[in-house]
Amino acid sequence: MLNFIKDQVRTIKRKDPAIKSTMEVFLYPSFRALLCHRISNFLFRYKLYFLARFICEFAKRRTGIEIHPGAKIGKSVFIDHGSGVVIGETAVVGNNVTMFHGVTLGGTGNEKTKKRHPTIEDDVFIGSGAKVLGNIVIGKASKVGAGAIVLNNVPPGVTVVGVPAKIVRKR
Amino acid sequence: MLNFIKDQVRTIKRKDPAIKSTMEVFLYPSFRALLCHRISNFLFRYKLYFLARFICEFAKRRTGIEIHPGAKIGKSVFIDHGSGVVIGETAVVGNNVTMFHGVTLGGTGNEKTKKRHPTIEDDVFIGSGAKVLGNIVIGKASKVGAGAIVLNNVPPGVTVVGVPAKIVRKR
Amino acid sequence: MLNFIKDQVRTIKRKDPAIKSTMEVFLYPSFRALLCHRISNFLFRYKLYFLARFICEFAKRRTGIEIHPGAKIGKSVFIDHGSGVVIGETAVVGNNVTMFHGVTLGGTGNEKTKKRHPTIEDDVFIGSGAKVLGNIVIGKASKVGAGAIVLNNVPPGVTVVGVPAKIVRKR
Repeated sequence: MLNFIKDQVRTIKRKDPAIKSTMEVFLYPSFRALLCHRISNFLFRYKLYFLARFICEFAKRRTGIEIHPGAKIGKSVFIDHGSGVVIGETAVVGNNVTMFHGVTLGGTGNEKTKKRHPTIEDDVFIGSGAKVLGNIVIGKASKVGAGAIVLNNVPPGVTVVGVPAKIVRKR
Repeated sequence: MLNFIKDQVRTIKRKDPAIKSTMEVFLYPSFRALLCHRISNFLFRYKLYFLARFICEFAKRRTGIEIHPGAKIGKSVFIDHGSGVVIGETAVVGNNVTMFHGVTLGGTGNEKTKKRHPTIEDDVFIGSGAKVLGNIVIGKASKVGAGAIVLNNVPPGVTVVGVPAKIVRKR
Repeated sequence: MLNFIKDQVRTIKRKDPAIKSTMEVFLYPSFRALLCHRISNFLFRYKLYFLARFICEFAKRRTGIEIHPGAKIGKSVFIDHGSGVVIGETAVVGNNVTMFHGVTLGGTGNEKTKKRHPTIEDDVFIGSGAKVLGNIVIGKASKVGAGAIVLNNVPPGVTVVGVPAKIVRKR
């Protein structure tokens, strides 16, 4: 738990140019939502579903960030601002991923498999209001533009934008 | 009121694959926002506008879902996740409608008539972040894609996507 | 402060057709968020960053509107509904600007200068869910359509829509 707090302090200070002091980290919705998720995810793995959901809803009311207790979240993740973020039950988020407010990692409603939500690989950047829908993969270090609607796999190291999202830049 | 609760329990268990137990229904923002709306709509019809608005704002703070007390909402409606949902004063929502977070049923600011907001017919599905604006009609069982901006009438049984929204599939 | 309250009452009654009485103004998220911003901005100018941020986060939890304490906001501004609004540290908002819920005045993450966020000139109208990103200027009395993603300067008196936003109408 102490490692988690240290990692978050380092991550937020590195990623947000608007921060003025270390103390401010404890006011960040990102920090509080991810802390609650660690607890709700622990309860979920022990099948304490109601309690897990209760903590998830509590965190959502306080931070605007809704992370389903079943989602898997990596290290050094940062969710800037946070209002309106929704991360689904079977979503997987890698290390060092940055997301902005309004991002959805959701389902399309047509999924037949158990895994209904996307997998986000390490170092991915997802702009504000972007929606990544279905059991797809966003490749390592790719960028998703603000407001993009992503419905297909995205290879590593590219930038996608638009509705629906298309590749605009390759490394 | 008991009928409403029974209907909501049935609706949420049918529509959300992530639910684990009946008790969880009472944690759903959709359930709590629609319950508050029934109260605020009752007060609104008796011209208790301030009290109606107070309950509407209370529900919004707790659930992220803002339903104007004047809006007309049908049976078996489900609003998944809910943060950022805005439903305007003269909006009409039919039975068995499913909406995701970030959906707006709003005005365009240019309306001259009393009815400034859309009418959503039965069985419509509206994806996350979609905005339906103005006094238009979304026809029975149509689907609106995530992030779509809908500014014109949509016939029944079609799928619309994009900014601005266009028909991509007909039944 | 009294001038601010009088100005807000006048602004909201003029701009929102759904309001029924003057008392309702005090329930408006726009009014409460802008009031908190005046306090947090005052503290920020005296370098009381932690306290300023605390009030900013408090206001966000209660209203859904996040205005960084460093942002400069003009007179007669109105933010309708408000959930999911994010206004960045170096954003400047002119007089008589109208914004809807879900609007972002943010950075792109690539800014090298101190001013990372947009400048919105007087009388601008920004539709729900629109994102204005980077150190750009939206010219006087222009309109930004719902869901638009604006990445370049917008001249005065035009309407822009789409992802990315393009001019569709000139005065």
